[in-house]
Amino acid sequence: MLEKAGNFRNLRIAAGLETGAFTGRNFYDEDVYKWLEALGWELANAPDAALQAMADEAINLIAAAQMADGYLNSYYQVAEPEAKWSDMDHGHELFCVGHLIQAALAFARALHDERLLKVVLRFVDHIYARFGPGQSDATDGHPGIEMALVELYRYTGDPRHLELAELFIDRRGRNRMRGHAGYGAEYHQDHVPVRMADEVTGHAVRQLYLAAGATDLYMETGDVALLEAMHRLWQDMTTRKIYLTGGVGSRFDGEGFGAPYELPGDTCYCETCAAIGSLLWNWRLMLITGESRYADLFERTLYNAVLASPGLAGNCFLYANPLHVRDGRYVRASTDVMSGAEEKRPAWHYVACCPPNVMRLWASLGHYLATTAASGVQIHQYANARIAAQVDGRPVVLDMTTDYPWDGRIALRVTETPDAPWTLALRHPAWCSTAALRVNGAAVDIAPDERGYWLLHRAWQPGDTVELDLTMSPRRVEPNPRIDALRGCAALERGPLVYCFEQHDQPDGIAFADLRLDASTDLHVQAAPALLGGIVCIQASGRVLGMARWQNTLYRPIDGASPTTAAQRVMLTAIPYYAWGNRGMASMRVWMPLA
Amino acid sequence: MLEKAGNFRNLRIAAGLETGAFTGRNFYDEDVYKWLEALGWELANAPDAALQAMADEAINLIAAAQMADGYLNSYYQVAEPEAKWSDMDHGHELFCVGHLIQAALAFARALHDERLLKVVLRFVDHIYARFGPGQSDATDGHPGIEMALVELYRYTGDPRHLELAELFIDRRGRNRMRGHAGYGAEYHQDHVPVRMADEVTGHAVRQLYLAAGATDLYMETGDVALLEAMHRLWQDMTTRKIYLTGGVGSRFDGEGFGAPYELPGDTCYCETCAAIGSLLWNWRLMLITGESRYADLFERTLYNAVLASPGLAGNCFLYANPLHVRDGRYVRASTDVMSGAEEKRPAWHYVACCPPNVMRLWASLGHYLATTAASGVQIHQYANARIAAQVDGRPVVLDMTTDYPWDGRIALRVTETPDAPWTLALRHPAWCSTAALRVNGAAVDIAPDERGYWLLHRAWQPGDTVELDLTMSPRRVEPNPRIDALRGCAALERGPLVYCFEQHDQPDGIAFADLRLDASTDLHVQAAPALLGGIVCIQASGRVLGMARWQNTLYRPIDGASPTTAAQRVMLTAIPYYAWGNRGMASMRVWMPLA
Repeated sequence: MLEKAGNFRNLRIAAGLETGAFTGRNFYDEDVYKWLEALGWELANAPDAALQAMADEAINLIAAAQMADGYLNSYYQVAEPEAKWSDMDHGHELFCVGHLIQAALAFARALHDERLLKVVLRFVDHIYARFGPGQSDATDGHPGIEMALVELYRYTGDPRHLELAELFIDRRGRNRMRGHAGYGAEYHQDHVPVRMADEVTGHAVRQLYLAAGATDLYMETGDVALLEAMHRLWQDMTTRKIYLTGGVGSRFDGEGFGAPYELPGDTCYCETCAAIGSLLWNWRLMLITGESRYADLFERTLYNAVLASPGLAGNCFLYANPLHVRDGRYVRASTDVMSGAEEKRPAWHYVACCPPNVMRLWASLGHYLATTAASGVQIHQYANARIAAQVDGRPVVLDMTTDYPWDGRIALRVTETPDAPWTLALRHPAWCSTAALRVNGAAVDIAPDERGYWLLHRAWQPGDTVELDLTMSPRRVEPNPRIDALRGCAALERGPLVYCFEQHDQPDGIAFADLRLDASTDLHVQAAPALLGGIVCIQASGRVLGMARWQNTLYRPIDGASPTTAAQRVMLTAIPYYAWGNRGMASMRVWMPLA
Repeated sequence: MLEKAGNFRNLRIAAGLETGAFTGRNFYDEDVYKWLEALGWELANAPDAALQAMADEAINLIAAAQMADGYLNSYYQVAEPEAKWSDMDHGHELFCVGHLIQAALAFARALHDERLLKVVLRFVDHIYARFGPGQSDATDGHPGIEMALVELYRYTGDPRHLELAELFIDRRGRNRMRGHAGYGAEYHQDHVPVRMADEVTGHAVRQLYLAAGATDLYMETGDVALLEAMHRLWQDMTTRKIYLTGGVGSRFDGEGFGAPYELPGDTCYCETCAAIGSLLWNWRLMLITGESRYADLFERTLYNAVLASPGLAGNCFLYANPLHVRDGRYVRASTDVMSGAEEKRPAWHYVACCPPNVMRLWASLGHYLATTAASGVQIHQYANARIAAQVDGRPVVLDMTTDYPWDGRIALRVTETPDAPWTLALRHPAWCSTAALRVNGAAVDIAPDERGYWLLHRAWQPGDTVELDLTMSPRRVEPNPRIDALRGCAALERGPLVYCFEQHDQPDGIAFADLRLDASTDLHVQAAPALLGGIVCIQASGRVLGMARWQNTLYRPIDGASPTTAAQRVMLTAIPYYAWGNRGMASMRVWMPLA
């Protein structure tokens, strides 16, 4: 796809290997860098000669395209050579550098391959000379380089790398940027200094990448004003501006956050990249605080907002992720298709930020399961995995086996451990109201600690087993009454999965818009191994609204007539939200009106 | 404002009277033409030397800017002289011509001043030579010229003018246009031939201007396929895609129609120009059919969607007209402000299509009150007016006196009439459930005819009086259950006015978002002559939602806990929707959730 869309060709023209005009948008290089980052992590997971050859070719191409002075951006080199660094608001040059750094660090860290890092260090020297202390006081219109520079600093130890990250963050909030759509400088988070911010605003991906970078900066500097601002932003986002799926961004216009409680399901944006930005930020906040609420939101966002983007076949992607679609006509982003209207997930996008963002997340997902500290090992996400860590300098290996998220039973086996006691911490998911814990078959009756983790402290032996049984009952969820778009609705969840009703699974011959969910009847769980790659469905009784009095009428005076009632009984079937839209685009809704 | 924004200067540069660069957008001339049309109608209403001098200056300027070959568009003449007619999708050249024609016809018809018409005729000759039969088969990316050309044909009788209108309509539907936002060719109504359309789609102003032009074409040609298509579009719009205010356009992204029943109050677009486009179209459908439903929608749209645009002082305007605003932060269009964020209606807009559209409507409003036919006089809108008409070639003068829309009593006095009997038709407003009719003081007990008009046929005498008393009780209105955004809400109306709740009028110290309206208690009407220029308020009992269990929570499992209840009683006060936002932008909502 990167060849087809012209991304590689742009770099070849910049490298003088080919002639022609630039194709696409000024940030097309970043798609290459994200894909390359994915390759780096993936090659470390499993060596593959074909992938390695592709990576080598791309790295050589990027190195060849770099200018003698370190500059590298195929758009400006090919299309506007005189305009470098002239459009800080929308030029995306620093944004692309951020992803180049992340790709270089993936290769350096995972494969000890520093070829791309050499390109990066030359480029960052160029940037430091231009934007460092005493130079241009501009900053980036699209954040992203901040977290990359902090990570680069962690690798290189070069204080200039941290300094640059800090400068780019400190220069925000001067209302200098032009903005987009109805947002003004808020679009770029340039309306208020980062340390004074108390609301997530503007373009959602920009906001979340900036927050992740500012959180990284706090981690290295201990600047408490930054962390306090991050807590305010997180509070604002999670209590007023987030979807049940973990998705964020209520508006197509400006791809941005909306007003508090403005959370429509049909016209929500919920860009895949914004959900990934939220993962990056929540991971960092979890590292700082050790609190499970960040890992909870990571889980919710991963299994729902992010996982809904790729189709089940893995070769097509949604850019915006709606929670409600009428008659298959989901609202399209102007950026999400290469051409024309399509009936399904497009294979690639004109603005293709999302697909390679999913790729690099998938390739590095193992890094987000667990952490270590001097006290022991902390498990944040439950999945089949071998966890190899160091506790107090000594190796620990744990094997985790589970059918999560379909089943709440998680088995852990201690394969290697030092003799000295250490603590195994297991996250208590917020969705789980009852759970059982056993060590070597014996029940352990403890409550989670104040951070939301069960702590098992003991002198572990190889062969020790821990069994965690999270009761996974289906549940109805209700929305805050201030959310106008969801009034009178409920959603279904089970474990970490948000469910949705798709037209395909409902009784034939009934208008999907007229379905209603019963408020309190039993929910039935039904495994469907042959459906959509193997899922668990939820069945719930419902009604069909009688619409006779509403023929050709949108509004009517409330009179003495009998109210519109939901009379006919039906059985409704819900599937996991992530699996929607894989059988043709039909009607779909996460929030079902109550009968 | 036209001087300040650069519109006049652009024309002076095109005329060679000034040097410099073009300012603004490629359609800036149309703002001048709409304003000039308003001047034409207004000068006919009341001569005014100062306005006449401004009109003369503008007309001379426009004539001076016209090129020798008849072409006239200051953007292309000044900024892109080689690119004329090269961007039919977004160039707006034909769109501007449409408004030039309308201005010329206003001066010709209302003032017998044909100076601007001479400019028009030269330009239309140029267009006919370029786009007439056998020439370029392009059409306009923004409709508007079609209705202007039909109207020009009515004035000139030149069949080429009708022919051009028909060509521009017939050339649509070939999927040649690029579109905008997520819409594709639908944005321009180029996705389906006009006669085959069955849904209003894409950019709302474009759709409605096209519909008005196609309806005009039917009137002159009798092409039934056009009228049938218009009926389908009207059915789709009025039963699936219109707001209670008569506003249309659900989406900011693309300023367009949404999916059926996608009618959010907070992020609705409801562009002022789209509402005016709806007036133009409904007026034409009423002329064709004589049915009151079109005049009903005209009235609803006029008193609500359109009247809300200008502030009460008349010097500031809304571009988008929301039905719900949270904390004063109404969603802004990228096009609606000259610069920066403003707390109130802006005095002018960067895309200033709306303000002069309101001006020309206000100046010509008298033309929409009544019609004549061989049978007599038909009154469609109730207002203080002297109606001078011809019935069967003989003069009829009626004086209409009323305090409408505050009071439903309308008094008509026959001032001049022929001896022969004729029929006075009075519209029965759809909002009115009981009414009384008296002629010379004597009750007349008749039902409206099948078209929705009371018909009074008699030999009228000068001095005859007709009294119509439309009972104007306040009423609650409920939404179609398929409208997700309005579930569980009701709105208040009285007469033709939609009401809204604005924070200013509610009890202090209560979160506006937590107010609820009682479902069935009495509504109290209260005149407030000192408030907002003199209005009638509606008072209704309500509750304040107890939000204790929702602290910092957006979603929660439905458990056995007592549901969120609305306990505290409050008295809510509603004002006419058109008057909102004149005391600072606070919270406002038309649809109030029911307790």
